[in-house]
Amino acid sequence: MKPRITIGIDIGATTIKAAVVEFNSTEDKFCILSQKIVETRALDGPDVVIKQLFYVINEFLNENKQCDFRGIGIGTPGIVSLDRSTVKNPPNFSGWSEVNLGEVIHKKFKLPIIVENDANTAAIAEAKYGAGANYNDFIFLIWGTGVGGGIILDRKIYRGPTGGAGEIGHITIDYNGPVCNCGNRGCIESYIGQRYLSERTRKKLQAIPKDYPPSKIIELAGDNLNTIDPSIISLAAKRGDKLAKEILLEAGTLLGIAIASMFNALDLRVAVIGGGISASGKLVFDAIRSSVQSRALKSIKPEIIIIPAKLGNTAGMIGASTFVL
Amino acid sequence: MKPRITIGIDIGATTIKAAVVEFNSTEDKFCILSQKIVETRALDGPDVVIKQLFYVINEFLNENKQCDFRGIGIGTPGIVSLDRSTVKNPPNFSGWSEVNLGEVIHKKFKLPIIVENDANTAAIAEAKYGAGANYNDFIFLIWGTGVGGGIILDRKIYRGPTGGAGEIGHITIDYNGPVCNCGNRGCIESYIGQRYLSERTRKKLQAIPKDYPPSKIIELAGDNLNTIDPSIISLAAKRGDKLAKEILLEAGTLLGIAIASMFNALDLRVAVIGGGISASGKLVFDAIRSSVQSRALKSIKPEIIIIPAKLGNTAGMIGASTFVL
Repeated sequence: MKPRITIGIDIGATTIKAAVVEFNSTEDKFCILSQKIVETRALDGPDVVIKQLFYVINEFLNENKQCDFRGIGIGTPGIVSLDRSTVKNPPNFSGWSEVNLGEVIHKKFKLPIIVENDANTAAIAEAKYGAGANYNDFIFLIWGTGVGGGIILDRKIYRGPTGGAGEIGHITIDYNGPVCNCGNRGCIESYIGQRYLSERTRKKLQAIPKDYPPSKIIELAGDNLNTIDPSIISLAAKRGDKLAKEILLEAGTLLGIAIASMFNALDLRVAVIGGGISASGKLVFDAIRSSVQSRALKSIKPEIIIIPAKLGNTAGMIGASTFVL
Repeated sequence: MKPRITIGIDIGATTIKAAVVEFNSTEDKFCILSQKIVETRALDGPDVVIKQLFYVINEFLNENKQCDFRGIGIGTPGIVSLDRSTVKNPPNFSGWSEVNLGEVIHKKFKLPIIVENDANTAAIAEAKYGAGANYNDFIFLIWGTGVGGGIILDRKIYRGPTGGAGEIGHITIDYNGPVCNCGNRGCIESYIGQRYLSERTRKKLQAIPKDYPPSKIIELAGDNLNTIDPSIISLAAKRGDKLAKEILLEAGTLLGIAIASMFNALDLRVAVIGGGISASGKLVFDAIRSSVQSRALKSIKPEIIIIPAKLGNTAGMIGASTFVL
């Protein structure tokens, strides 16, 4: 039996993570044989990003000359064309409107290349090998800088007519809400995406109620409110900080509203949530659960499952790899 | 070639509409051969509703003894099981938790029976023969007592893992909004469903601004504000009433918010809208369009299409019929 060895790449706004991934014959198990991380250099334009990709792929091919690679799977921000080759408008990438990444890389390495949106690659990894493995249908969310998503229907990723599906972060939860990066008002992302959450935390710290103890958030931020990010809020909450707990509780409750809308419209019951902030654990997940529970339709309520993702940072690379097989 | 003759039935809360429908050999055209309407008697319990169904089916079979019926398609409120036979909790039907309508009717008439949710039957009719015929993927909405929906993906109805998909009326547009029939807050239905819209209209009439002319809504309602329903608001708007126009404009704008959420999450661009209130025409559709336009993601904006349904009251029967073939 020929080994099923692939290269899986996850292009992020700051780093490119890449791995050589081997799958067993039934594809129900995988093994990461080696990993590399290089800078993406997204602000230097697509040519530089492609050079970085060439570099990391070359390294893997040179180090594993005896291997018969099946192909290269690539997860990337932005909308990926239906033929899984061209990447459109990845946010925070300079000078990049539309690049046929699949073609460029195939030309260089003569291997099959599959490109897919990064939330979708992570979703499919969780569906096959992670927290979603027991469920045919679920919503996958990455809660980090933004709120990205992937929709798994009948064990497959739902890509939509142009490949852009899964933008769960841009579901409105309050039409009079804050202006979102996308131009709309009151998207769930505009409440709980990293930048917005940090900003709201700063405001709350400035108006902290008199009966509250001094917030551990300030201590952890080294007295510089500009350094506040969700990991600091999570840490403060874990150390018992009242305000930090309230902020995470509210964020979870708000996310639950968007999830309930999706559950109701699509008849779903399961959400798998990954990304940095979701690591804050039980407090946040309990808040999400009770919010979805109070808002979902009667037929859905008894079967709601909200669980953390399992594969963490590797999900993107593994998911990208599975598309190759 | 054997003629493709079916019986299509649309069970509503007040009437059962039924038709003998003939399809041509390629199934791209249909012809309604005859129609009947009987009372549903939903409040008298499932046995009585079934008796009404038996009556109308019997009539058709007796009147068309020479016909070789292919089967009976039935559209009904409530959630229909994945095997398209059992109907769960149709709202406003007394004593009805779960009834295997398909089995009961098959036992009596020995014909193939397919049962489907009524919004889904109407959606599939619009997809095959109506306003959605040119689109592979769209949202179908029935805006009436509630806001029902069906989701057409790749020309097929998306039913969800348990058959309950399409509850677009229960997408939240403001999490602090009014309490909805379903128990959630701020569902789009809780703003623009018939009962809610009429109620809000009454409140606005009681607090009519001093610089407004006397509202034609009051005149049309015969001075009894309790008789106000969306058809009166529509008629008043058509006659130029300022308040009525504002109400419809606002309703359309609100509906657009829910549609934009769906478009963003599912990568869709087309909505087909039927039901009583949608008949108010251009004013409402323009409002929906401009609302979706302002709220959808950049990649979706250039291709947004919001159009009225074409088949009106017959959509349910025709859609139910097509499921038989």
